[in-house]
Amino acid sequence: MSRTYTGKEIAEHSSRESCWIIVHGKVYDVTEFLPEHPGGSKIILKYAGKDATAEYDPIHPPNAITDNLPPEKHLGSVDLTTVEKVEVVITDEEKARQQRIAQRPPLTEVLNLHDFEAIARQVMPEKAWAYYSSAADDEITIRENHAAYHRVWFRPRILRNVTHVDWSTKILGLPSKMPVYITATALGKLGHPDGELNLTRAAAKHGVIQMIPTLASCSFDELVDAAVPGQAQFLQLYVNSDREITKKFVQHAEKRGIKGLFITVDAPQLGRREKDMRMKFEAEDPAEVTDNKQQDRVDRSQGAARAISSFIDTGLDWKDIPWFQSITTMPIILKGVQCWEDALLAYDAGLAGVVLSNHGGRQLEFSRSGIETLVEVVTKLKEKRGLAFPNEKFQLFVDGGVRRASDVLKAIALGATAVGVGRPFLYAFSSYGQDGVEHALQILHDEFEMNMRLLGARTISEIVPEMVDASSIHQHIVSVPTDNLYFSNYESMQSARLREIKPKM
Amino acid sequence: MSRTYTGKEIAEHSSRESCWIIVHGKVYDVTEFLPEHPGGSKIILKYAGKDATAEYDPIHPPNAITDNLPPEKHLGSVDLTTVEKVEVVITDEEKARQQRIAQRPPLTEVLNLHDFEAIARQVMPEKAWAYYSSAADDEITIRENHAAYHRVWFRPRILRNVTHVDWSTKILGLPSKMPVYITATALGKLGHPDGELNLTRAAAKHGVIQMIPTLASCSFDELVDAAVPGQAQFLQLYVNSDREITKKFVQHAEKRGIKGLFITVDAPQLGRREKDMRMKFEAEDPAEVTDNKQQDRVDRSQGAARAISSFIDTGLDWKDIPWFQSITTMPIILKGVQCWEDALLAYDAGLAGVVLSNHGGRQLEFSRSGIETLVEVVTKLKEKRGLAFPNEKFQLFVDGGVRRASDVLKAIALGATAVGVGRPFLYAFSSYGQDGVEHALQILHDEFEMNMRLLGARTISEIVPEMVDASSIHQHIVSVPTDNLYFSNYESMQSARLREIKPKM
Amino acid sequence: MSRTYTGKEIAEHSSRESCWIIVHGKVYDVTEFLPEHPGGSKIILKYAGKDATAEYDPIHPPNAITDNLPPEKHLGSVDLTTVEKVEVVITDEEKARQQRIAQRPPLTEVLNLHDFEAIARQVMPEKAWAYYSSAADDEITIRENHAAYHRVWFRPRILRNVTHVDWSTKILGLPSKMPVYITATALGKLGHPDGELNLTRAAAKHGVIQMIPTLASCSFDELVDAAVPGQAQFLQLYVNSDREITKKFVQHAEKRGIKGLFITVDAPQLGRREKDMRMKFEAEDPAEVTDNKQQDRVDRSQGAARAISSFIDTGLDWKDIPWFQSITTMPIILKGVQCWEDALLAYDAGLAGVVLSNHGGRQLEFSRSGIETLVEVVTKLKEKRGLAFPNEKFQLFVDGGVRRASDVLKAIALGATAVGVGRPFLYAFSSYGQDGVEHALQILHDEFEMNMRLLGARTISEIVPEMVDASSIHQHIVSVPTDNLYFSNYESMQSARLREIKPKM
Amino acid sequence: MSRTYTGKEIAEHSSRESCWIIVHGKVYDVTEFLPEHPGGSKIILKYAGKDATAEYDPIHPPNAITDNLPPEKHLGSVDLTTVEKVEVVITDEEKARQQRIAQRPPLTEVLNLHDFEAIARQVMPEKAWAYYSSAADDEITIRENHAAYHRVWFRPRILRNVTHVDWSTKILGLPSKMPVYITATALGKLGHPDGELNLTRAAAKHGVIQMIPTLASCSFDELVDAAVPGQAQFLQLYVNSDREITKKFVQHAEKRGIKGLFITVDAPQLGRREKDMRMKFEAEDPAEVTDNKQQDRVDRSQGAARAISSFIDTGLDWKDIPWFQSITTMPIILKGVQCWEDALLAYDAGLAGVVLSNHGGRQLEFSRSGIETLVEVVTKLKEKRGLAFPNEKFQLFVDGGVRRASDVLKAIALGATAVGVGRPFLYAFSSYGQDGVEHALQILHDEFEMNMRLLGARTISEIVPEMVDASSIHQHIVSVPTDNLYFSNYESMQSARLREIKPKM
Repeated sequence: MSRTYTGKEIAEHSSRESCWIIVHGKVYDVTEFLPEHPGGSKIILKYAGKDATAEYDPIHPPNAITDNLPPEKHLGSVDLTTVEKVEVVITDEEKARQQRIAQRPPLTEVLNLHDFEAIARQVMPEKAWAYYSSAADDEITIRENHAAYHRVWFRPRILRNVTHVDWSTKILGLPSKMPVYITATALGKLGHPDGELNLTRAAAKHGVIQMIPTLASCSFDELVDAAVPGQAQFLQLYVNSDREITKKFVQHAEKRGIKGLFITVDAPQLGRREKDMRMKFEAEDPAEVTDNKQQDRVDRSQGAARAISSFIDTGLDWKDIPWFQSITTMPIILKGVQCWEDALLAYDAGLAGVVLSNHGGRQLEFSRSGIETLVEVVTKLKEKRGLAFPNEKFQLFVDGGVRRASDVLKAIALGATAVGVGRPFLYAFSSYGQDGVEHALQILHDEFEMNMRLLGARTISEIVPEMVDASSIHQHIVSVPTDNLYFSNYESMQSARLREIKPKM
Repeated sequence: MSRTYTGKEIAEHSSRESCWIIVHGKVYDVTEFLPEHPGGSKIILKYAGKDATAEYDPIHPPNAITDNLPPEKHLGSVDLTTVEKVEVVITDEEKARQQRIAQRPPLTEVLNLHDFEAIARQVMPEKAWAYYSSAADDEITIRENHAAYHRVWFRPRILRNVTHVDWSTKILGLPSKMPVYITATALGKLGHPDGELNLTRAAAKHGVIQMIPTLASCSFDELVDAAVPGQAQFLQLYVNSDREITKKFVQHAEKRGIKGLFITVDAPQLGRREKDMRMKFEAEDPAEVTDNKQQDRVDRSQGAARAISSFIDTGLDWKDIPWFQSITTMPIILKGVQCWEDALLAYDAGLAGVVLSNHGGRQLEFSRSGIETLVEVVTKLKEKRGLAFPNEKFQLFVDGGVRRASDVLKAIALGATAVGVGRPFLYAFSSYGQDGVEHALQILHDEFEMNMRLLGARTISEIVPEMVDASSIHQHIVSVPTDNLYFSNYESMQSARLREIKPKM
Repeated sequence: MSRTYTGKEIAEHSSRESCWIIVHGKVYDVTEFLPEHPGGSKIILKYAGKDATAEYDPIHPPNAITDNLPPEKHLGSVDLTTVEKVEVVITDEEKARQQRIAQRPPLTEVLNLHDFEAIARQVMPEKAWAYYSSAADDEITIRENHAAYHRVWFRPRILRNVTHVDWSTKILGLPSKMPVYITATALGKLGHPDGELNLTRAAAKHGVIQMIPTLASCSFDELVDAAVPGQAQFLQLYVNSDREITKKFVQHAEKRGIKGLFITVDAPQLGRREKDMRMKFEAEDPAEVTDNKQQDRVDRSQGAARAISSFIDTGLDWKDIPWFQSITTMPIILKGVQCWEDALLAYDAGLAGVVLSNHGGRQLEFSRSGIETLVEVVTKLKEKRGLAFPNEKFQLFVDGGVRRASDVLKAIALGATAVGVGRPFLYAFSSYGQDGVEHALQILHDEFEMNMRLLGARTISEIVPEMVDASSIHQHIVSVPTDNLYFSNYESMQSARLREIKPKM
Repeated sequence: MSRTYTGKEIAEHSSRESCWIIVHGKVYDVTEFLPEHPGGSKIILKYAGKDATAEYDPIHPPNAITDNLPPEKHLGSVDLTTVEKVEVVITDEEKARQQRIAQRPPLTEVLNLHDFEAIARQVMPEKAWAYYSSAADDEITIRENHAAYHRVWFRPRILRNVTHVDWSTKILGLPSKMPVYITATALGKLGHPDGELNLTRAAAKHGVIQMIPTLASCSFDELVDAAVPGQAQFLQLYVNSDREITKKFVQHAEKRGIKGLFITVDAPQLGRREKDMRMKFEAEDPAEVTDNKQQDRVDRSQGAARAISSFIDTGLDWKDIPWFQSITTMPIILKGVQCWEDALLAYDAGLAGVVLSNHGGRQLEFSRSGIETLVEVVTKLKEKRGLAFPNEKFQLFVDGGVRRASDVLKAIALGATAVGVGRPFLYAFSSYGQDGVEHALQILHDEFEMNMRLLGARTISEIVPEMVDASSIHQHIVSVPTDNLYFSNYESMQSARLREIKPKM
């Protein structure tokens, strides 16, 4: 069934009735798939009979098309020299963005992880920014994730010789230069052509561990191949409804040397990320959106996130845990635990740990932050099973909202082994590629050194619970709404003002 | 006394001294009623001797004129072909509004219930918006109703097979596709010519129950007639000082198949809704408002709400409950209970349930939100009577401030049987008619499906108290006022900025 | 020493070296007083040799000049017909203000007490507004006074026959149409030429009690004379260092029929009211302010408030209480009690009650609000002396921050006998004279009627502690300061937007 | 090695290859030091071969250059008459600043300590403002320092004879006119050419104690010499890695009559002050910042603060305390204690007291405010050692965020002996020199007098714990993030508005 086509042959199939496209030098017949495309038929039709690779790459995992199209639609190869280049029209908006890219400040002016976000917001394509920055429903949880850290305050110790401070640690037994790992985030090529490879390479240089996402833009093997000898990597797993696919993937990962399997358990269905969904409408002619309603069989209004996740198994259950334990010897960690009851079940099931996480605020709105859940998990697992944390046998991780080494140290003091950081690294490579990620890690390095000294802790083991006051962590305060009439009548006080000097005539 | 008039005859009675008007083809002499009209005499005089139907319809229940005018003022019919059309002057403001209506985004772009409100605010006539959106006094309670939900956070469970999730339930024994009913709200024609019919029809399609309001713009029978076979409806009742009228109405309702009687108990007098009251002044020449002061016997400064509610009995008492139980076999629910003591009295009185509600923040300012009251009611009724909730025999409902399925699920977890939603549906039909209401219900459908999965609950009965943390619900926090001098001196930090590129000469 | 001068004679004394002025037809030599004038010498010199009455009146109690100048400086009378009118230059600013006065909305559009403040702010002279609206230090306490009421929420009761509701009460045994009295505020003529008479007259019409201030712009006797037969009045007393003056004043008051003596105890020295102090600088040439520094012996930078209060006795002590009890049989109440310990002392001293007040936030910054103090006083006096409140023998009052009848009802529920309202009435007469005050009382009347019904209370005695939840009253919350970098990166969500319609060519 | 050079000789060494500079009439060869200069090489090269004194002075302690350059680089003296003046180019920005200086309001218009900050912000060079006003990381702690005082409210007492109030006290046995001392802050010449001398002189006039900073712009002896007979001074000590230097300094200080040694223990490494760091980039050509990266061996991106502090010993330890006790008989106080455990250790070590401080929010972000720590220290030291506070033997001080005498009185009530005030005095002399500091002290004087009276306390010993309610002090509240969609839909209420008067045609 496989032969080599010419550009001209393919160009004849450029209509809704017969629609062929080229991706990475292969030809596919997507006519029947058009109405099912989660991203809408319109965008495919734009490339009907043409090479769609450049458009396809950043928003699909590499094997998306081969996995989703039946084999008989894989028509064959194409002689790329015969294909007419798709003329890329550079919009005014894109030109302005290119201008902003040219104006990025030098990395030396980037002083903290917030800066990467401020820059990324200006230099990323709007759609990519929307995908990375959006979160569930009213986006309260994503903000709470960061805010929760501000309810924890330090009780630092003084007069300890802090000339030498060491914030290296072990994560699942593997050395890490800091109690931080790069957590899994999808679709890296939206931000940078090298996608997640930026993370792999920077992680190698700085001695931290990267968690490879199932939904990476780069293929799993590319990311493993890019690791230097001895560089540890973890795998984040979305479990496929077809367990054989999952089994193959997990066992392949173990064979390739992956050191830990993080099964995502907070996403049986992906959350509504309305900023991302809204972006779609902006990009199309509103009139057609309405008309298309009849023609497409799939709800296209769900944004990039859902488009790529339909394979995820909604049926995953505690009963599946022994099966995972039977197919791999990697330590298994549940990613997305949100209450102590499930942390206890994970412990009792013999797992290696849990990530206390609400998926960066992208799944269930009003799920509590990881740092808040950590406090109850530590309390209850001590009460129920006599565990002390941090604990080598059953490790607690948190992620979400971390922007400073001080955030990380709060989590460590409260019992976490390490903390996952995601978006800041995305923003770093979206702005500066691998250099950005390295600089981000260097900033964390500098902050750890300073904060360890100021806390009076020479090693991670000296970061103890007494060093923080987390007594306000469970407060979910919403102020009584303002009395606008009263306060609009109130006239603010003013400071002394400079004298006005009247010009002389 | 009843005969048929010509337009010309009627047109002769167009002054304050003799003022006749036409409504729905009938002629009325309203001369003596002029100074008593809650909406002021001016607006009636504008239609003196003419057909006032178009102006009358949206802001009066259908039988307002027949009920309020003595029979001898019902002069007879009119041959409408002989009546001159009232020339409607379209103001610039109205033209701009019509333009905005034309620009409404397609329904596919409406992603959540908030969107309807944002659109309704732009496409509704200003007066209608004021009536729907206004609330009591400083409008703190209306905002608190929503804010209170944000003090409740989820404790979701993982690794449960959530392939099939089912959020259907029973309300007073009747099946409902979701734990939500359309609660009663007045004057639907202010927002859309079909008024509450939009709700009836959409409710039928989506399998939810509509509560018919006493003060509907459509007549009770119209709304019952519009129901499809098997479609359940409830009735909201304002009790009339004349109990015979109430008795007739209730027994008629039961005969027509109404399945539940919700007696409003939080509105012996309607609240001050100052936005609504303020609207009146905008609409008239301020000079005349002052002058009219002497002429009108009625305080016209009370807005649309009070204008239509003077019949409500301020003397309603617990002693009347047995009488209600004697005139109907419908389950009786009190709507507007605001503390556990009254919930307990209702239970002891043998009623079927209570709606914990502060009337959408439109009645007593600083009455607590339904979701907050729910927590104390569940605690105390367990303590005093050993009841567990949700409870089939004595059902708890809440309303006010709900905008997301997640809000509903919090109430269910805390013990409610179902939640009433009002304004969002008003805004939906004010923006898009019946389609809007259907789309609103579809959005809730999608949100329920997702949230059930993310909570790890397959059925409503799996939504348990342990799934929420409501420990901050009773906190009524107002921050210490800001130190303006101190904080105005503080200069906010700034992120790294793009370099400025100087143009080359 | 007293003779009659001509305007011409007086006009010769118009310099710093010899400065005479006319006030109310009398001539005074103020040459030596110039450097001691709390308001600065400049303003007096402006009227040197002229009639200063119009300037003098609003900002001085009537007898200020006679009390402060030694008798030998009271030169005699003047034949006013011989005095040249002081030409009043109307500034552009004043013209604009007169224009705004003409544009005041009719009273029917004033819906709540906030409205008076909004209007007063626009129609009052800036200095007068500054004096009335200013408060101590950073003006946190004045705002807290109102905010504290928002930490108290209602628990209303339903199904009580509220056809007849009655919110009249007794204050110190005297009937009052509502549980509100007009509390004492100084310098009423700053806002209106009739000053406090506006309050006396309106109080008569509405059956409420006025507390006459020591520092009224009108004389005490004027205010008593203006009362109608049977109209009760109280007296607020600043105690003079010269106790004979106080004794004379108190005994005169009792003779004139005053029914209660409220001794101010929270103002041994008047607070810093910087808005008021700042106003002074605005009004003068800054260069001269600097130069004058050397010449004036008095710190002029203290605003109107301190200028008029130097006589107040800083030595007032509990030991003086028996003396007060010996010179009058009027019930004695301490105004300005701020903790339970002092309320207990007052009770033990046999006094008739206390006003829990921080002087409208004008004295000690960060003193708690009256409504907050009320909660601890009621608790502790029950614990220590077995008292129940409201209590006829020992009455508790609160003032500060009240704007709605619902605020008053919260205080009543918590144990107060009545509530003092000050600024809102000042703003009412500053905007509309006596009519304004009457309308303000009418608004409170309407709000009481509605709120009593909605609370389910037919009489004041049915307003019980269980009707409020004040559990958050002692919370003095200040949020952790915002993370500006994080939140400036966050991009707010947006609602669906209207489509943009491109104009057709 | 020391001879006298001519300007011409020196001018020959004006390149990166050979770079000499003149400071205070001495010549230094800084060629090898260029890449190590914490402030970057660029700024030195600007003065290569020239007199750098004017640039050097404000941002270096006087002996910085002699201490940091090896003796062989101290080339000798210069005949200043032969040196060409460095032409100072006055930028437009500087001209605008000079204009603003001319417009400063007279001191009589400065009503509170906030005013100095408002003025300083406008009249200081931007870099100097950044250095003084910046703080650690996200600058949350600096703001919390002030905010924490607002969680403490007064419970004032009445009817005490407060004619005479006296707020003088003793600090470490030395008389002070108020319970306030001028705490140590670095680099005073950034704000004013007289630097810390402004403080010494004003302290003398007002009878308060100045703490001399190690990093003063003026030399230690200058500041001691400027004291009047009997004027007490303390010394703040940064401990040098070379303990001999420290020993010499401490013993010299004792000999010169210093009365207390405050050892800074919260700054083993100086905090990141990003506003200060950011300022550097503004000041240079961004392109060069990038290029320079390779050339400099030192991280120049650390701002003024770190540049001058590399000598501070990171190894300081409790074990060093006996050594300090062996080299001086001055009372020793630890400055920067942040939890009760360390206060207890200090007490047990026989020290004279501790300053509860987080270094003005400039060191560890999220370290609690001094006023909050005070509450736990007083509680725990009573529990563990039976101590009562204030305590002569072991004195507690706090600093950070103080702007009003009322802030000070809260600390006194809670157990502090005195309170350190820093930035406000810096802003005072940066705006008005010594006069500014005196006026600031006079403002505090006036505020103490008033507040003592209003509190009902005649002496400091009458300021007791019962006078404050600090029950909210440990609350670290962060509100749940706002629901932007909901609240953007909410339309604020409006007050009654003035009528619009249409112009007559």
